[in-house]
Amino acid sequence: MCKDKITVVKVGGKIVEEQDSLDRLLRDFAAIDGFKLLVHGGGRSATKVAADLGIATTMIEGRRVTDEAMLRVVTMVYGGLVNKSVVAGLQALGVDALGMTGADMDIIRSRRRPVTEAGIDYGWVGDVERVNGEALATLVRAGVVPVVAPLTHDGIGHLLNTNADTMAQSVATGLTPYFDVRLVFCFEKPGVLSDEADDDSVIPAINPAMFESLKADGTVSGGMIPKLSNSFDALCGGVGEVVITSAAALADMSGGTHLTL
Amino acid sequence: MCKDKITVVKVGGKIVEEQDSLDRLLRDFAAIDGFKLLVHGGGRSATKVAADLGIATTMIEGRRVTDEAMLRVVTMVYGGLVNKSVVAGLQALGVDALGMTGADMDIIRSRRRPVTEAGIDYGWVGDVERVNGEALATLVRAGVVPVVAPLTHDGIGHLLNTNADTMAQSVATGLTPYFDVRLVFCFEKPGVLSDEADDDSVIPAINPAMFESLKADGTVSGGMIPKLSNSFDALCGGVGEVVITSAAALADMSGGTHLTL
Repeated sequence: MCKDKITVVKVGGKIVEEQDSLDRLLRDFAAIDGFKLLVHGGGRSATKVAADLGIATTMIEGRRVTDEAMLRVVTMVYGGLVNKSVVAGLQALGVDALGMTGADMDIIRSRRRPVTEAGIDYGWVGDVERVNGEALATLVRAGVVPVVAPLTHDGIGHLLNTNADTMAQSVATGLTPYFDVRLVFCFEKPGVLSDEADDDSVIPAINPAMFESLKADGTVSGGMIPKLSNSFDALCGGVGEVVITSAAALADMSGGTHLTL
Repeated sequence: MCKDKITVVKVGGKIVEEQDSLDRLLRDFAAIDGFKLLVHGGGRSATKVAADLGIATTMIEGRRVTDEAMLRVVTMVYGGLVNKSVVAGLQALGVDALGMTGADMDIIRSRRRPVTEAGIDYGWVGDVERVNGEALATLVRAGVVPVVAPLTHDGIGHLLNTNADTMAQSVATGLTPYFDVRLVFCFEKPGVLSDEADDDSVIPAINPAMFESLKADGTVSGGMIPKLSNSFDALCGGVGEVVITSAAALADMSGGTHLTL
């Protein structure tokens, strides 16, 4: 007997942080058939709110250094502002959304990242240890659509800032015992491009060997590298399909870059 | 056959906003036997964060005027900062907390308050229209402890700022078809006092006739009036017991002011 399908969608900050693109994303997400779950970012808003509060943002290799003050900001922005705006918007479209962080119902537990060998202390940043796929699956089967903010907890009372791509991959993998999982990373571009300046240059499929050569020749760089790594991790973890595409393509799921092992 | 009991606890902003009193509250709340649910405030933090963002707070008759900017603040503070801190703290104590606003799983829908006859526009403030007691009861019976922030939604995409005492009363009433409900309003004082300067002057019980005379002679004033009105509304709505007491009394539930019809 085949498992039910579920679509796990990750949307980046830029899409959920501007009203027009958010409205469109919510409509397209609402239109996805069957079981689904949304993981969102919110980094740009966090940086903006932090700046408005006089708190400087420090990024190291694309990751936010999260001291006590920044943890408060991301808890407000990811867990409150962005998450609840998405939830209210989905409810208006008839989607029974439930906003969650990893602490809620203990769905995602993480461990505070140790100071790196290079001496970098990311602060209150958490690396995912385990996903409670059963709790999520029970909610989803009851008709609930979890909307997950990129925050986790350590089980001893601390919230931790966690990369949204990593969370999406972890959640997707954690759901594989219960569902046939499709993971879709949505961002501003129509897929992984061979020429960054040309939106028509989408690479239709990438496997691990191609990934190595695309890294080596510089076609793939920056934030796309962890996104692709996460994608392969998801496939290795039993996720059936991983696609990197634009939010605009959510509706018909044509195009985009498909990852394969 | 008797219904299962549930304890609905409302805690005011001051208690959840200071680490020491929050820690104690969470321990006492965790120790309550049986089914339970927490509704929290957060007004002091909202005022503080608003001030840090250069946004002035306007209160009219104890109610926050909520323009677009203030709605963003309360969404961040109530839905994010306060709610998720409580959830992470309860999880650390083994309580399977789930942070929610009224928008999450559509549990509490409200209507934007019309401009008053006196011409006061409270902005994005919502008066509760209906509570989805069945959804809450299902969660509670599954072992989940909802932690409810004082935000609701109108069902067409807007979050609304809603008084936490009113939410607690509405939630308690909405649960009466499913549970025998006890509602506990926790604040800094040991109960309703006959002499505000004397913490030993707790009035052990108040009925509606006494409420009228306490209002008339000025013993009860300010924010205590809507708290007591909410309490009687809850009793009229089928809530079995309403107590106004200190957070410190949660553990043994001795003392406090008991409301009766």
